[in-house]
Amino acid sequence: MSLYRLDASINPATSQSRALADLVEAEWTSEHPDSLVTRRDIGTEPPPATTWRDIVTSGQTPEADLTERQREARALATTLVDELVDADAILLAIPLYNWGVAAHVKSWYDITYTDARMKQGALAGKPVVLASVLGGDYSEASGKASWDHSTPWLRHVIENIWKADLLIVQRQLTLVGINPALDAMKEQAAEVHAAAAQLASEHGQALAAKRNARTAA
Amino acid sequence: MSLYRLDASINPATSQSRALADLVEAEWTSEHPDSLVTRRDIGTEPPPATTWRDIVTSGQTPEADLTERQREARALATTLVDELVDADAILLAIPLYNWGVAAHVKSWYDITYTDARMKQGALAGKPVVLASVLGGDYSEASGKASWDHSTPWLRHVIENIWKADLLIVQRQLTLVGINPALDAMKEQAAEVHAAAAQLASEHGQALAAKRNARTAA
Repeated sequence: MSLYRLDASINPATSQSRALADLVEAEWTSEHPDSLVTRRDIGTEPPPATTWRDIVTSGQTPEADLTERQREARALATTLVDELVDADAILLAIPLYNWGVAAHVKSWYDITYTDARMKQGALAGKPVVLASVLGGDYSEASGKASWDHSTPWLRHVIENIWKADLLIVQRQLTLVGINPALDAMKEQAAEVHAAAAQLASEHGQALAAKRNARTAA
Repeated sequence: MSLYRLDASINPATSQSRALADLVEAEWTSEHPDSLVTRRDIGTEPPPATTWRDIVTSGQTPEADLTERQREARALATTLVDELVDADAILLAIPLYNWGVAAHVKSWYDITYTDARMKQGALAGKPVVLASVLGGDYSEASGKASWDHSTPWLRHVIENIWKADLLIVQRQLTLVGINPALDAMKEQAAEVHAAAAQLASEHGQALAAKRNARTAA
């Protein structure tokens, strides 16, 4: 049995998305102590910027005529999709950067989507938890809820394209204590963070239970 | 006087976003025949996947202690922002890829946003045309209008962050004639394409006129 974990923070040492995903992972590991946890860190080791285009533009080229870079690009796609397909459950730790997903997240997704398996329902029904952090205040009250362009796209590709079984936990206001402009929100941040931590644990338990249900079915 | 044009298609030879942006550019050049048109092609020459992180994580490092790669990353940011700031008008040709902006578009944006000028209104009021193409049917009738996660993010950063003066022209159904699943939409595609071509020309005229108005003011 295995959990696949993808991290996209560019600052692992201080990453809030990692901390939130750790809470999910702890519940999984508690339920499945012998489970393998496989990890990929695209925040610090992003796929090359040329990989996706190399695959797409070499689409009709026979294997023998591929350049070395095209060959490596296709191999990376196969590896990344193998990782997703082989996992019993998936945990994605993806922060919001400049109101969208980071380039390396889109790059990772685009590369995986070149593999035919991703268009054939290879991840249908697979349990997925997305742990996302947003530095500022994106509450309904802030008027900026629509400024998060990351979660809607991720929800779209995970639910509509992968057809996976998705749970989302978001922690907002993670820049409180770092960005002085947010100092007035300390109390609100503490509440938001506690609620997110609670939800992360619940989602971790749900992830482990879903895996059990799929095995029993 | 100068127009700055950014292209993001990964297939320049057959690019529909280029064709659409060419219509905008033709009107600009017709009104300003002596104008310089500066170009950057991030579709075929994307910024390295490591550049943005190199800049962000070296934020507090003194100039003298920077690695060569960090130095190059900062220099690229300065160049990219110089290009935008120096232009009298901006034309962006950005296709939708997998329901969002391509990784190289987000990377380009994130890199520019590390430069202090981009947080200080350096592009406020600047006339911008965004020419975007969407391969499939994203009309209201299709029920998939919300599957375009590119245009809303681009609108957000151009209008709310740059505070630039934005016009958008979109051409949908560009995969009709290529993807057999869309064969039934040939007539609709012809109408959509003609309307987009007309709007691209109008936006080109408006871009040229706005430039004149700014000069006169």
